[in-house]
Amino acid sequence: MADRWFGEPARGGFEQRIELRGRLWAGQSAYQRVEILDTVPFGRALVLDGAIQTTEADEFCYHELLVHVPMLAHPRPRRVLVIGGGDGGCLRHVLLHDVERAIQVEIDELVLRACREWLPTLADGAFADVRASLVVGDGVAFLRDADEPFDVILVDSTDPVGPAAELISEAFFQLAAAALSANGILAIQSGSPLLMADELRLAAARIGSVFPIAATYLGHVPAYPGVLWSYTIGSKQVDPREPRRPAPPGTRYYTAELHRAAFALPAYLQALGSGRFDPAVVAPLRG
Amino acid sequence: MADRWFGEPARGGFEQRIELRGRLWAGQSAYQRVEILDTVPFGRALVLDGAIQTTEADEFCYHELLVHVPMLAHPRPRRVLVIGGGDGGCLRHVLLHDVERAIQVEIDELVLRACREWLPTLADGAFADVRASLVVGDGVAFLRDADEPFDVILVDSTDPVGPAAELISEAFFQLAAAALSANGILAIQSGSPLLMADELRLAAARIGSVFPIAATYLGHVPAYPGVLWSYTIGSKQVDPREPRRPAPPGTRYYTAELHRAAFALPAYLQALGSGRFDPAVVAPLRG
Repeated sequence: MADRWFGEPARGGFEQRIELRGRLWAGQSAYQRVEILDTVPFGRALVLDGAIQTTEADEFCYHELLVHVPMLAHPRPRRVLVIGGGDGGCLRHVLLHDVERAIQVEIDELVLRACREWLPTLADGAFADVRASLVVGDGVAFLRDADEPFDVILVDSTDPVGPAAELISEAFFQLAAAALSANGILAIQSGSPLLMADELRLAAARIGSVFPIAATYLGHVPAYPGVLWSYTIGSKQVDPREPRRPAPPGTRYYTAELHRAAFALPAYLQALGSGRFDPAVVAPLRG
Repeated sequence: MADRWFGEPARGGFEQRIELRGRLWAGQSAYQRVEILDTVPFGRALVLDGAIQTTEADEFCYHELLVHVPMLAHPRPRRVLVIGGGDGGCLRHVLLHDVERAIQVEIDELVLRACREWLPTLADGAFADVRASLVVGDGVAFLRDADEPFDVILVDSTDPVGPAAELISEAFFQLAAAALSANGILAIQSGSPLLMADELRLAAARIGSVFPIAATYLGHVPAYPGVLWSYTIGSKQVDPREPRRPAPPGTRYYTAELHRAAFALPAYLQALGSGRFDPAVVAPLRG
């Protein structure tokens, strides 16, 4: 194999690389290049347009924070919408909760097929759950036509370039707010606070302009560039920092104490979730 | 410049690299190879035996957690000992507190000289403070002969190979405990929980066998491999998780809320600080 190491393009002179056992599969959809890699540290990985999306070994770090924090902050989430998340890991974690219905809208059928074949443990049968529905289509269009309210909307998207660019627009957050019930919660993955500070600042500011309550929380996802990762919540009424029920059994990352702690941002990153974020504070990491 | 990127050797198929503007200086002491690099993302960096120790841009992430957490958990730290920390950043942060005396014991005079010349903002005059004393010598020997008790001992060492190997031995922790006052606190940097799990497990288990209270806490240091970083405290009486005074003004990482939150470990890393840590849980990251 010519290229034994995988890494996203360096950002501001910072690069993270992962050793490969092999490149298992690649394809091109109308939206993006889809690859399945076999990595030494993390097992199999899904890569879209050269950016790592999830891996077998550390998907729990990402999915448990993206899913369980808003799900457990909500007093009673019955109807849940997942936008993106074609690997099925997000849906699987949603279905660990006592929901009535979980709808997933993924734009790229090739991602769904590649993950079904190469990363079956990520969904682990979630798409076959009687409570789950899969829509292959555009999440923005789906939201525009949605006529029943959701309690929680999760955006498990690629970084906001290419097919996902619209998913951090103010128009999208307004559609999401309109599709949420009176105490509804939106949660998005909002990228690396160190390496994608501009995108995070934009997303947090826009969520803060649409929702009465907005907050960014942090965790780590070892396979993602810079390891430290952010999630941002928009909430209509509910304080997202407080879990209201015990977690589903068997969590490997999430704990109730960690839920609260994840919102305690370091001083230099505190303005991120408030719309007052000054990108100059992370300028050293942005070259 | 032949090699435009710096990285520590890959661990378990994981590698982090930093772009260089230049290599400013290098020397060899009796203990280690000492280098000063000029990096694109972090400004100047101190590198010992190929391992990055601190940088101008992110030293505050490391020093504020290593220093302020034990200093603010202690009810009244008057006498403080720093072992290692030749760049002076640790001492500088100690002197932000109302201490009577801060003694630093650094084994390698070449590190002191290199940092004085190339990284003067790290110490920022701390060595000239009337409360500070610098001893060039072996921290273990110093502790063995110490006859006045310390309230806080901070170990700001290289990873526990080479000159620092003895600094995670049970014998060392026993010496430290003997040199601490009745409510004294020891804090060490205990490496990457993802990439150096064996060393962390050893250090945490040994501290737990010597001190009545032991706890590991986490933060991020962007220039360090894997970004996520651990610190471990041994305490004779005091709960290290609770700050007892306001922080010195001007902190950029530390907040009182973050102090408490840093001890909330993800479930899969929880056994780290308790001596019950099973390295198998992070096996995917260890190749």
